[in-house]
Amino acid sequence: MDIDEQLASWFRLTLTPGLGPASVRRLLRQFGLPERVLAAKRGELARQLDADTLRALDSAEVGRAVDEALRWVDAPDHFVVTLADERYPKLLLETEDPPPLLYCQGRLELLERPAIAIVGSRNATASGAQNAESFAKAFSSAGITIVSGLALGIDAAAHRGGLAGAASTIAVLGTGIDVLYPTRNADLAREIAERGLLVSEFALGTRALGGNFPRRNQLISGLSRGCLVVEAALASGSLITARAALEQGREVFAIPGSIHSPLAKGCHALIKAGAKLVETADDVLAELPGLRESGRAPAEQAPAAPSRVEPLLAEMGFDPIDVDTLCRRVGLRAEEVSGALLRLELEGLVCTLPGGRYQRLK
Amino acid sequence: MDIDEQLASWFRLTLTPGLGPASVRRLLRQFGLPERVLAAKRGELARQLDADTLRALDSAEVGRAVDEALRWVDAPDHFVVTLADERYPKLLLETEDPPPLLYCQGRLELLERPAIAIVGSRNATASGAQNAESFAKAFSSAGITIVSGLALGIDAAAHRGGLAGAASTIAVLGTGIDVLYPTRNADLAREIAERGLLVSEFALGTRALGGNFPRRNQLISGLSRGCLVVEAALASGSLITARAALEQGREVFAIPGSIHSPLAKGCHALIKAGAKLVETADDVLAELPGLRESGRAPAEQAPAAPSRVEPLLAEMGFDPIDVDTLCRRVGLRAEEVSGALLRLELEGLVCTLPGGRYQRLK
Repeated sequence: MDIDEQLASWFRLTLTPGLGPASVRRLLRQFGLPERVLAAKRGELARQLDADTLRALDSAEVGRAVDEALRWVDAPDHFVVTLADERYPKLLLETEDPPPLLYCQGRLELLERPAIAIVGSRNATASGAQNAESFAKAFSSAGITIVSGLALGIDAAAHRGGLAGAASTIAVLGTGIDVLYPTRNADLAREIAERGLLVSEFALGTRALGGNFPRRNQLISGLSRGCLVVEAALASGSLITARAALEQGREVFAIPGSIHSPLAKGCHALIKAGAKLVETADDVLAELPGLRESGRAPAEQAPAAPSRVEPLLAEMGFDPIDVDTLCRRVGLRAEEVSGALLRLELEGLVCTLPGGRYQRLK
Repeated sequence: MDIDEQLASWFRLTLTPGLGPASVRRLLRQFGLPERVLAAKRGELARQLDADTLRALDSAEVGRAVDEALRWVDAPDHFVVTLADERYPKLLLETEDPPPLLYCQGRLELLERPAIAIVGSRNATASGAQNAESFAKAFSSAGITIVSGLALGIDAAAHRGGLAGAASTIAVLGTGIDVLYPTRNADLAREIAERGLLVSEFALGTRALGGNFPRRNQLISGLSRGCLVVEAALASGSLITARAALEQGREVFAIPGSIHSPLAKGCHALIKAGAKLVETADDVLAELPGLRESGRAPAEQAPAAPSRVEPLLAEMGFDPIDVDTLCRRVGLRAEEVSGALLRLELEGLVCTLPGGRYQRLK
């Protein structure tokens, strides 16, 4: 099976209405790579999927969406990175709910750079936007890529600051990667597509839907080592991103402001809840040891997850084993081991057993 | 010996050049009340004091200062509260370095009210002064007295806010209580003397000396359950007060501001170091449980230190005992026990033994 057929299988799974990211990952865990899911007897799949979803899986309509996606990825600087891809970001793989695939446009290598998320209000004050831009520029100049959501206000300023430094910026979209939203940031998006990276987990043509933005926010923090909130009202999307970051074990930073400014209240709430108050980019970098160094000398980075796979397999043996035991044996954190196990499952090297245990197959 | 003679002895000890607060307390621990110190053989005192100090102790010059102090305290609303006085603030007694006596002018009962310190920059911004005043007014209206240092800027605003509520304000002076400093706050000082309370540990006539202000700051926090810093530059007196508050086990609170404001930097440094970021008076009160209640219903307060003296004596027995053992027996904190022991010593009921142990005498 050639690479296009493999990719077509990934597209078919993820573009089938009724199959969300969690369902896709469940099927992958059970059957292996997407082509094996699609090759499975429909009777077997019927135990996992309802009739409508099963019908959609083989429908001509999904077939047309797959063809469109294949045409899109064929263009220069367009990429699709799947869970089974070596280029899939390691940090993201360690999160609870990694997207099965990412549509990317621009400098794909930015996915492997150390990154910090900068988020905040769409209705930023001039001073807030200036802070976002200058922190972003300082990080980017220190070799750290800026991740944000391409929204107006703080996001846009953060992207501009990222573009001004060497490590550039990643814009994570809540729409299909071919949908420009908001239109006022169209020029910025084009510039990021050229000198940075656009990323979306949503199907081509997906319009701006409120329900998709929490997943967009989770992806922003999932790609980042830490998350800086510059200005945010209480009950704002930025706080959702910050909460996602906390749940993903990321450091959260917040810039304080006047107690009379509504846009400082979100930041103050975060600080009260344990986020670090920061006044300078150095304050942030001081809390993320190793980030600056890895940004400056990517060639000297510690070996990442893939090279840990072999020792993990060796330590597993061929007896059923649970994650905790495996963590103790290899001295890695549960998220790291789970991420590596997912990759091994996708490669057909291990399978899941009832009770959350794993079995080495090869 | 009548009460004036007793007070004259306190004055003579504390007004003798060369006898600082720590030396005075050491003499009290060794000999008992001041009249016993003064009644001691000079040869015996010579083992503790150098020749100059010993000469000064009996000098006519100190005698004149004592007479002046006795005349001062004779005026209406003038008070002197000594370490042996039941009215000496319990919280202050628990600190490392309580002043042997306090000169007070105004509503002495405020010394027994629950209190919060509010301090900050002399060069406050208009917004900072407004914050100080409105937090102070909210506390005072909740029955909590405002303690500050009668300086320009934040201090003055805090006092004004305190005067606007029911629980009023205490101004702690870094000068003699009869010295008006700074003169621009003369009207405010007069108002506090009438409707609040002026407090100083320094001798009458003591001018504004830089070296005295750290002790003034320590007294501010020593009288208070918590300390709120409103605006402060880095390396400012307010941070010294905050540090004193932390060392005395008080909660420290700070109001954040713009990262570009020099007067927010001190507050941000405190928050980074663990102080609580607060946006409203309620944020502060939420961290000091019981404070509001004790402010509202002083009659229903839990019994304070004096009533704990009897069980402490009972638990001591007549064998030498150290503070840690005593703490375990009576279930009180070391500062509480030390404070109570000091009072018992002054009353001649216990004495200190070498090695930090205590012996019950009666």
